[in-house]
Amino acid sequence: MNYDQIFDQAIDRLHSEGRYRVFIDILRNKGAFPNARCFAGHNGPKPITVWCSNDYLTMGQHPKVVSAMEEALHDVGAGSGGTRNIGGNTHYHIELERELADLHGKEGALLFTSGYVSNDATLSTLAKLLPGCVVFSDALNHASMIAGIRNSGCEKKVWRHNDVEHLEELLAATDPNVPKLIAFESVYSMDGDVAPIHAICALADKYNAITYLDEVHAVGMYGKRGGGISERDEAADRITIIEGTLGKAFGVMGGYIATDTRIIDCIRSYAPGFIFTTSLSPVLVAGVLASVRHLKASSEERDGQQRAAAELKAMFRDAGLPVMDSVTHIVPLMVGDPVKAKKISDILLAEYGAYVQPINFPTVPRGTERLRFTPGPAHTEAMMRDLTDALVEIWDRLEMRIAA
Amino acid sequence: MNYDQIFDQAIDRLHSEGRYRVFIDILRNKGAFPNARCFAGHNGPKPITVWCSNDYLTMGQHPKVVSAMEEALHDVGAGSGGTRNIGGNTHYHIELERELADLHGKEGALLFTSGYVSNDATLSTLAKLLPGCVVFSDALNHASMIAGIRNSGCEKKVWRHNDVEHLEELLAATDPNVPKLIAFESVYSMDGDVAPIHAICALADKYNAITYLDEVHAVGMYGKRGGGISERDEAADRITIIEGTLGKAFGVMGGYIATDTRIIDCIRSYAPGFIFTTSLSPVLVAGVLASVRHLKASSEERDGQQRAAAELKAMFRDAGLPVMDSVTHIVPLMVGDPVKAKKISDILLAEYGAYVQPINFPTVPRGTERLRFTPGPAHTEAMMRDLTDALVEIWDRLEMRIAA
Repeated sequence: MNYDQIFDQAIDRLHSEGRYRVFIDILRNKGAFPNARCFAGHNGPKPITVWCSNDYLTMGQHPKVVSAMEEALHDVGAGSGGTRNIGGNTHYHIELERELADLHGKEGALLFTSGYVSNDATLSTLAKLLPGCVVFSDALNHASMIAGIRNSGCEKKVWRHNDVEHLEELLAATDPNVPKLIAFESVYSMDGDVAPIHAICALADKYNAITYLDEVHAVGMYGKRGGGISERDEAADRITIIEGTLGKAFGVMGGYIATDTRIIDCIRSYAPGFIFTTSLSPVLVAGVLASVRHLKASSEERDGQQRAAAELKAMFRDAGLPVMDSVTHIVPLMVGDPVKAKKISDILLAEYGAYVQPINFPTVPRGTERLRFTPGPAHTEAMMRDLTDALVEIWDRLEMRIAA
Repeated sequence: MNYDQIFDQAIDRLHSEGRYRVFIDILRNKGAFPNARCFAGHNGPKPITVWCSNDYLTMGQHPKVVSAMEEALHDVGAGSGGTRNIGGNTHYHIELERELADLHGKEGALLFTSGYVSNDATLSTLAKLLPGCVVFSDALNHASMIAGIRNSGCEKKVWRHNDVEHLEELLAATDPNVPKLIAFESVYSMDGDVAPIHAICALADKYNAITYLDEVHAVGMYGKRGGGISERDEAADRITIIEGTLGKAFGVMGGYIATDTRIIDCIRSYAPGFIFTTSLSPVLVAGVLASVRHLKASSEERDGQQRAAAELKAMFRDAGLPVMDSVTHIVPLMVGDPVKAKKISDILLAEYGAYVQPINFPTVPRGTERLRFTPGPAHTEAMMRDLTDALVEIWDRLEMRIAA
């Protein structure tokens, strides 16, 4: 048994497929997002523009968020010091849960250390509590939902992405007397398309299923108060459980679910991933509180993001770049090859100071490797023009242009 | 199918077993730990003393930690803005990983959003990468290790707690040609006992197994530089992977592993729980960096904690309270009944302003419910005297005294 050899082979597979990843070492400049410094390791940090942040609305540098965190840091210190049950439940946690419940019009909310953990802990626990539960999962659901469903040990039926006819076929073919859970996302982050929430809820009603909606790429950004696509589409009251993140549009870190008090009580009492972990630092929670409250009242950031996304898509399209069909703030350019995607990204960073990460398997299916841009309210027209010109030059250099 | 009824039954089970948990709503007072405010919900916050924090060394209020976090907050903002691979890898992360690798004398380290996720992600991925792997797990391993092992889908063999003879029996009965992973903790947090690391490593050598050691209740607190029990016992170089937390003695939040570069590369490339999650906020990472560096150089906090633990154990023992046999900083009092444990805790908080959480199933086995005190360098002799007097009064009131 040679352990080193086995581990070496696992790493060699990544190299041979062109998807061995190297972390890009950066520091963002608060007050000047999307500008950042990149540490190349040789001659000091170099200024760059970040095009792939999930701090979609630049709330991570918002003065209200920063000052709320500073205040909490000086009032109660760095960490929570315990799990929610043992010493780590602070007044900030309770307040934020109330705020998030209100955001989605639900009875309660429950915080987790990340969106990944929210999905994994909730889905695995929920499906276990429902004897014989069958989970219906959209084919493009996030890795954390897949993990939660798999870890529940339940039967899973995968429906073709956003295909409600296929979902109905699967529901109709399932024993009417077993519990059913339909799990899906609102905005799919790698393609930028949106789920038909009402149509899915209509099937849930018809077949007596409960619904689980991941809104991590929508909360803060859609709906009048940032309640996500379910708020925008006036569908929040039809969803059993809405899941969201505090680390993307809200600009900080953490995850949550919003749902009935009864389900909250079950998850907080039975989910190991909730019970046995130090709670979110009160410093983070205080920052999120300020962020959620701000985005409930202000649409300026949402409008700015939508404007930027529309503008960048139009520029890419006009320049003949293969921009994918997205109806949201996500702007993906199809490359279709992991080595080329990485090469384009490397040239952008080294020669143009533009940072966008190549998206390779397992984040997207093989053969659909892409670059994924997330312009926000702070990306200027000049930045977008420079980026587009750079991409056209690189596309020409690599002989990849097909449209013009 | 009545979903509400199923959820109600799940909650009723908790009530009927006396283990329905209520979150205690507190805010700690930075600069005055272990003092805190408790929000009872009726007449404003009330001052309390916290006896159950896992911020063991009060590093969460250390001036160096607080000022490092404040500086990072103003330099780079609230959150990281992305996963480690996509926009969320900051220079702080890289520096902290170097610092933690050095702490344990390993080639590298890898950060996770929590200790729970470190265990779950690493164990499940590691065991999956080793074809046919059998995992040997101590019977009292933490829920997060159990989750990781179960999620790997591997065969698991459980050895009786700290019983190396039983471990050897199980190893000897396993095919010599399959990969073997021995997973255990150094300090068991609910009993306060310690694993025989060298004896376990000797078996690992003999049977060609790799070893995984959870040091979450030891890092920062044992060893000359806070490297944990494996440093104190000079065994770190015999352990394949050391896992630790940033949320207990280091006072902030997060988790990590320290091991060979080759294994780090595998975990960061293959573990969904690492890949698909927003990285730790740079504000937290900056705080931990300051904390780890301080505790590498200073033994004052460690010495203070050991003194306080010895003093409290002696007071409990002298007062005839059923203090459990612990060789570490953990001071557990056996109660043996979930309803009584909760009752004592309630009286302590309501009448004496002393906060200690009852520890019930599933955190400990049924019938071994207890109170678990974690005195630290900031708990004074007067506080301990008051606490002991209160406990004696309550033990008498509930007619529980057996020694004197």
